[in-house]
Amino acid sequence: MFKDNEHQPEGFQVSLKEALDNLKYNSEGLVPAIAQQHDTGEVLMMAWMNREAIEETLQTGRVCYFSRSRGKLWRKGESSGQVQLLKELRFDCDADTVLVLVDQTGPACHTGRRDCFYWKADADNVTIDKTPIIDPKELYK
Amino acid sequence: MFKDNEHQPEGFQVSLKEALDNLKYNSEGLVPAIAQQHDTGEVLMMAWMNREAIEETLQTGRVCYFSRSRGKLWRKGESSGQVQLLKELRFDCDADTVLVLVDQTGPACHTGRRDCFYWKADADNVTIDKTPIIDPKELYK
Repeated sequence: MFKDNEHQPEGFQVSLKEALDNLKYNSEGLVPAIAQQHDTGEVLMMAWMNREAIEETLQTGRVCYFSRSRGKLWRKGESSGQVQLLKELRFDCDADTVLVLVDQTGPACHTGRRDCFYWKADADNVTIDKTPIIDPKELYK
Repeated sequence: MFKDNEHQPEGFQVSLKEALDNLKYNSEGLVPAIAQQHDTGEVLMMAWMNREAIEETLQTGRVCYFSRSRGKLWRKGESSGQVQLLKELRFDCDADTVLVLVDQTGPACHTGRRDCFYWKADADNVTIDKTPIIDPKELYK
């Protein structure tokens, strides 16, 4: 469906059901989901969604992932309080990735940093270059 | 390694080799890589990298992915001319995702659109809301 319609003009529309029927889920029924802060453009984190997580996110306006480690739906912020409110949800051309534009409360990262991409690489080394904005002990107490 | 050092301060450093030894590659030896335009913040695309692709990207300054469909390294733009010059390469806290900040020449998407995330979803429908900036026939002629 996505491939067949990739050259359609702006405004071309299919039902959410048809789109979700045609996403390319992996063998675990998941697609990667990139979270980006809607106004600053910061890439905050990458997590995974199944069909139910996508549907819940669109219905509630609060971002829900599927936790691979816990094997269940994970409403972002349910233990830390650092929720993600949904601004936009998008699929890519290959129908195998979700992009969520969000309004992130506080840090997205479990380490207390604003985002998870704090290891910066060069051809020789990898260096931490971001500092927590909240002590992680305060996040999960 | 990544988990053990997640509370280290800014400036903490490990060798690239140690980091690459400790990335959480999937069963195919790949990690997802998010490409973001370095100055505008646009999330352009998501693709995959293996260890060799990461090393080549850092050494050459030109972004190289691993094409799952072709089963080999893929220097972005090798057929379309729409290359990605590397500005920064980052790993996330879980050591299972790469973020590349790039300078993208023209469209990142094979459809001729600037980015791949042109299907916008709501609770009922999914709608194309971006137009090609180059006719895809011009990209691959």
